[in-house]
Amino acid sequence: MSVTSAKQSRRLLQDTHISLAHGNGGRYMRELIEDLFAPLLASPALDVQADAVALQVGQTELMFTTDGFTVQPMEFPGGNIGSLAVHGTTNDLAVSGADPLYLSLNAFIEEGMEVAQLERIITSLAAAAHEVGVQVAAGDTKVLRRGEGGGIYLATTGVGIKPKGVKLGLDQIRPGDSILVSGTVGDHGIAVMLAREQFGLRGELKSDAASVLPLTRALRELPGLRFMRDPTRGGLATVAHECAHAAQHVLRLFEPLIPVRDEVRSVCEMLGYDPYYLACEGRVVAVVDSIQADQALAIWRDLPEGSDASIIGKVERDEGCHVVLETDLGGERFLDELEDDPLPRIC
Amino acid sequence: MSVTSAKQSRRLLQDTHISLAHGNGGRYMRELIEDLFAPLLASPALDVQADAVALQVGQTELMFTTDGFTVQPMEFPGGNIGSLAVHGTTNDLAVSGADPLYLSLNAFIEEGMEVAQLERIITSLAAAAHEVGVQVAAGDTKVLRRGEGGGIYLATTGVGIKPKGVKLGLDQIRPGDSILVSGTVGDHGIAVMLAREQFGLRGELKSDAASVLPLTRALRELPGLRFMRDPTRGGLATVAHECAHAAQHVLRLFEPLIPVRDEVRSVCEMLGYDPYYLACEGRVVAVVDSIQADQALAIWRDLPEGSDASIIGKVERDEGCHVVLETDLGGERFLDELEDDPLPRIC
Repeated sequence: MSVTSAKQSRRLLQDTHISLAHGNGGRYMRELIEDLFAPLLASPALDVQADAVALQVGQTELMFTTDGFTVQPMEFPGGNIGSLAVHGTTNDLAVSGADPLYLSLNAFIEEGMEVAQLERIITSLAAAAHEVGVQVAAGDTKVLRRGEGGGIYLATTGVGIKPKGVKLGLDQIRPGDSILVSGTVGDHGIAVMLAREQFGLRGELKSDAASVLPLTRALRELPGLRFMRDPTRGGLATVAHECAHAAQHVLRLFEPLIPVRDEVRSVCEMLGYDPYYLACEGRVVAVVDSIQADQALAIWRDLPEGSDASIIGKVERDEGCHVVLETDLGGERFLDELEDDPLPRIC
Repeated sequence: MSVTSAKQSRRLLQDTHISLAHGNGGRYMRELIEDLFAPLLASPALDVQADAVALQVGQTELMFTTDGFTVQPMEFPGGNIGSLAVHGTTNDLAVSGADPLYLSLNAFIEEGMEVAQLERIITSLAAAAHEVGVQVAAGDTKVLRRGEGGGIYLATTGVGIKPKGVKLGLDQIRPGDSILVSGTVGDHGIAVMLAREQFGLRGELKSDAASVLPLTRALRELPGLRFMRDPTRGGLATVAHECAHAAQHVLRLFEPLIPVRDEVRSVCEMLGYDPYYLACEGRVVAVVDSIQADQALAIWRDLPEGSDASIIGKVERDEGCHVVLETDLGGERFLDELEDDPLPRIC
């Protein structure tokens, strides 16, 4: 990006102070990244649209990605910030078609944190790394003053390698393509919210936080596969927007076909949340040539991780870059780009 | 490391809660890493003694390292947390003998941070990256709630590549080797402390924060070069301890030969600090076969970054793993391993 365009785009970020909405995966975060970080860093290797970038190092093309984790509470049903820090980053490699090999780990630990809790978190992190087959190869710890820092923040950077011939990307999406999701949406968001015991609500719902590698390995060499992404911050609606925006075509989702657990739906109805904006941490959205869609669905449904998989929509031939939800009652509504943060500190 | 030895070593970490001293680069931090992180992660690729590790990815051996940054204040004479986040991680690659190629960047930004300050920090970060010749290839931002988080924390992970034949490591150190330092010590620590305006002190001292690549590139292919390290958290004394511990021999430093700026010495005398424990962010300690020591010194002194370089000590043939400082007055004192944190949040 040239200096001129950097200066021009900087004008777009009109906020003078950072707000929580700059971290939610939606419009404000996109503006912060596209209008400040990307033009200033101006690196040809940086692709703010991609889950992982391909880097040429010596004779080898490796895949590279990074993610930070601040989830509150640090431990929740189905995982904790340690396992999440492995799954989040290795899932970004997985949806790019790669096998994760190595991770770096940064821990920002608050003064006063219980060593026993730190040990539980790092034990989960190690177990998740072992399960995924990735090695933590570099690490650093910093201690934050008491009251500064929410217990622990983690950052992981992943290095992986992609089988030859796997070519996935937003730019591969074509009108007519089908949209699949590998399982129920919103479980992670609601599980973390219930673990906070806000609003006097409790529940047994487990987060879906898990490795998506079985799902991505099964699908990545299927002809007609265009693109995969894990719907984390901003949820399914945000991935749908990214696809629509990249394809410059309307994306149509069919509400009756989108798998949502009853418990997630109930909490959403009670509190006025939309489950399509809630984070998942173990699901994959895939865009597939419609000719291969049934085959892709069958491959996923054969896996325990994909038993609730569903074909949930399509890329329409209509130009535009919005997302339309066809509702249960035959009506239609737009799924707007996320603005406010329904649930901050979710990952 | 086996599960048994992990359990055994866990018993050594007797603290129940994390304290600031667990982040200072000294004994407590070493125990936290050696007794909790390393045995739990149990990764053969992880070397907690190394600045950067060598990873085989496809046909290529790459060098990999990571570091977190929490310096307070975020801006100080000679740099800010943004330039520091580039120099810290690329310097770890440099002292391992590598050329840095790519960085990932994690930013944990506190709600309420001024966008103008964020822009200054990322502008410095980008300028430092440009100067070092490294590309920021992946990034992530998270927003922390107001009051949680000290403005901004950064984490960077670096990927580099090493010329064939460069073989450096703590295990290469031999009795009789000479110890060099590339410039004055403690500038960064005192500059940051003065920028805090604690103790009613002010000063014009600039941090030494800078890339050490010119220094390491000039020396890395010199026959007889054993090891290089940048003395950051814990300072020169901590690097000296790491060398003594690895070599299992006494390390002797000659106080009159260690370059310390008058301003740093004055502040240290006033406040009772020892300059040898203060962080540098642009210096290199090198261990060299004594036969090549004068040549190494001449190479460094020819560079602007090395004009104050000095041969400051040697590895004695005496067994033991302590560090002896021969003082100006001909006396001797031990430089103990750092315990308390003289200056927290320095990097």
